[in-house]
Amino acid sequence: MLITLHDAARMLSGADDILILCHRYPDGDTLGSAYALARALQGLGKRAAVDGSHEPGKRYRFLRELITPQAFEPRFAVSVDVASASLLGEPMLSRWGDRVELSLDHHRTGQPFAKCTFTDPSAAAAAEIVFRLLPLLGAPLDAGIAAALYTGVSTDTGGFRFPNTTPETLRIAAALMEAGADAARLNRLLLDTKSRGFLELERRVLGAMRFFLGGRCAVCVLPRETLDRCGVTDDEADAVPPMTRQIEGVLAGVTLREKENGDFRVSVRTQPGVDAARICRRFGGGGHSEAAGCTIHREDAPDAEEAVRRLVRAVENALPQDDVTKEERE
Amino acid sequence: MLITLHDAARMLSGADDILILCHRYPDGDTLGSAYALARALQGLGKRAAVDGSHEPGKRYRFLRELITPQAFEPRFAVSVDVASASLLGEPMLSRWGDRVELSLDHHRTGQPFAKCTFTDPSAAAAAEIVFRLLPLLGAPLDAGIAAALYTGVSTDTGGFRFPNTTPETLRIAAALMEAGADAARLNRLLLDTKSRGFLELERRVLGAMRFFLGGRCAVCVLPRETLDRCGVTDDEADAVPPMTRQIEGVLAGVTLREKENGDFRVSVRTQPGVDAARICRRFGGGGHSEAAGCTIHREDAPDAEEAVRRLVRAVENALPQDDVTKEERE
Repeated sequence: MLITLHDAARMLSGADDILILCHRYPDGDTLGSAYALARALQGLGKRAAVDGSHEPGKRYRFLRELITPQAFEPRFAVSVDVASASLLGEPMLSRWGDRVELSLDHHRTGQPFAKCTFTDPSAAAAAEIVFRLLPLLGAPLDAGIAAALYTGVSTDTGGFRFPNTTPETLRIAAALMEAGADAARLNRLLLDTKSRGFLELERRVLGAMRFFLGGRCAVCVLPRETLDRCGVTDDEADAVPPMTRQIEGVLAGVTLREKENGDFRVSVRTQPGVDAARICRRFGGGGHSEAAGCTIHREDAPDAEEAVRRLVRAVENALPQDDVTKEERE
Repeated sequence: MLITLHDAARMLSGADDILILCHRYPDGDTLGSAYALARALQGLGKRAAVDGSHEPGKRYRFLRELITPQAFEPRFAVSVDVASASLLGEPMLSRWGDRVELSLDHHRTGQPFAKCTFTDPSAAAAAEIVFRLLPLLGAPLDAGIAAALYTGVSTDTGGFRFPNTTPETLRIAAALMEAGADAARLNRLLLDTKSRGFLELERRVLGAMRFFLGGRCAVCVLPRETLDRCGVTDDEADAVPPMTRQIEGVLAGVTLREKENGDFRVSVRTQPGVDAARICRRFGGGGHSEAAGCTIHREDAPDAEEAVRRLVRAVENALPQDDVTKEERE
């Protein structure tokens, strides 16, 4: 059932022993939103905890210190930034998939799975929704909550660069700075810090980047061996997909990361006019119009080359028709 | 003489045939501020033009289309974002150095050189000052002015990431978006677009980056031959200095760009606590506390190695004492 934000606040106000669930491969928005909400609920005298199927990346670990560890049997599960049950990942899906009372989300696509869902696709980040929820809960915005929400807003907008950024996003970020979020320090930590291992990965990525469809599609394959040798975490490797889209003329950038089991985790980043979510839906994935993801299973593509071929074909079909025509005319 | 912003507005209101001067090696802030002001003045029925000692980089060329080319003999010169006369560069210094009526600036250091100077070091960008000046001039904020000012604010804060960014900066950016600045398009153009040549340069930079002082100082030398071979513009190479500071553990990143005449143009980027301006002042340069520049002349350093040695020594002296002690203890 779709509900209003006031309804959501009423549900949370009436609940206790609250478990907040993040999506799998957690990013700054799902984590920042979850820890901000947990801290706010704890501040209201409730027991609250955060959980998810995957460990947060190193850069997000500071969020854990924003809440007090509390042992309790959850009686109310709320998910943040989770568009579909499957995005809970395992083991959270099996454990909580059909028992989520409330979902707070900002995705346009997705399949409501919670008993009650509040979603606002105009919000750049789930953290914006938590920001608006706080006064309805009567929870004050302290520096810790502000830092967690800033993490969500900043990372989900690529540091206020993506087209999802609105004037409202910037004003919320301003309010979060005023409430004590150290924006410069957070941005440095979240967006502008590279390990030496990542430096090595970046060099290899730049060397191995390939171009298709007349330079409109950039493809980057990260074999398991490269990832292991550079010693980068999955979270660090998340910085590679945006690199593909930065190159002049590239309308769609595709990054394939080989998983331990031989599957490829695919990230697609596009320029406006090319729908990344549409490309990924062909392979059972989804996401935003300019940033989406999917998995290509080993059974479907025995090697990286076959996966690349299939992805480039999907990109080709998603390119605007006039663009193709224009090139043919040239 | 230091004046108020109201005084500055009165001076401009009483003037006509106005030449707006940018600093040498113009960046997004000096250019964005200049074109925004020129467009506003033209909108008020005045003749106005923009000039500077160096050509704007390719990514800033769109700004030119925001004003109407007008031929006139300037009767009033105003500089924007120019902290000292020497930063006008040649030929503007000889032509206008002692005839600038008004300087609009936001630098903390610098030597006032205009008849009247308004400076506000709390402003993240000169564009913030022009934004505040517009209503005092009675000039409406249209989409063109908004795009130019957004260019200034976004580039001078590294896309709202640098510590100079304030809540006010973000609110101004929000107002500029509402006035019609296409933030996503501008950020992509200004901050997130790389040519294929730059991709090649980046690969070489990452391969040749060197570390000193126990990893706290990263140094990157760009020989003329590398810059020429990659076919990147000076403007594109501006993206290299910030890369040095992004590496974990680096407190100061130093980039040396070989000029045609064998001099080295040096850019220093630092973490908080290490004063980049202080390092550069030793070599006759200056700038902000976390981003500064200077030139090391061929006479003073016959080769890159000597220049690197001198710079690393200057960085060493600028490192916080407790940091050195801490490392020694470890």
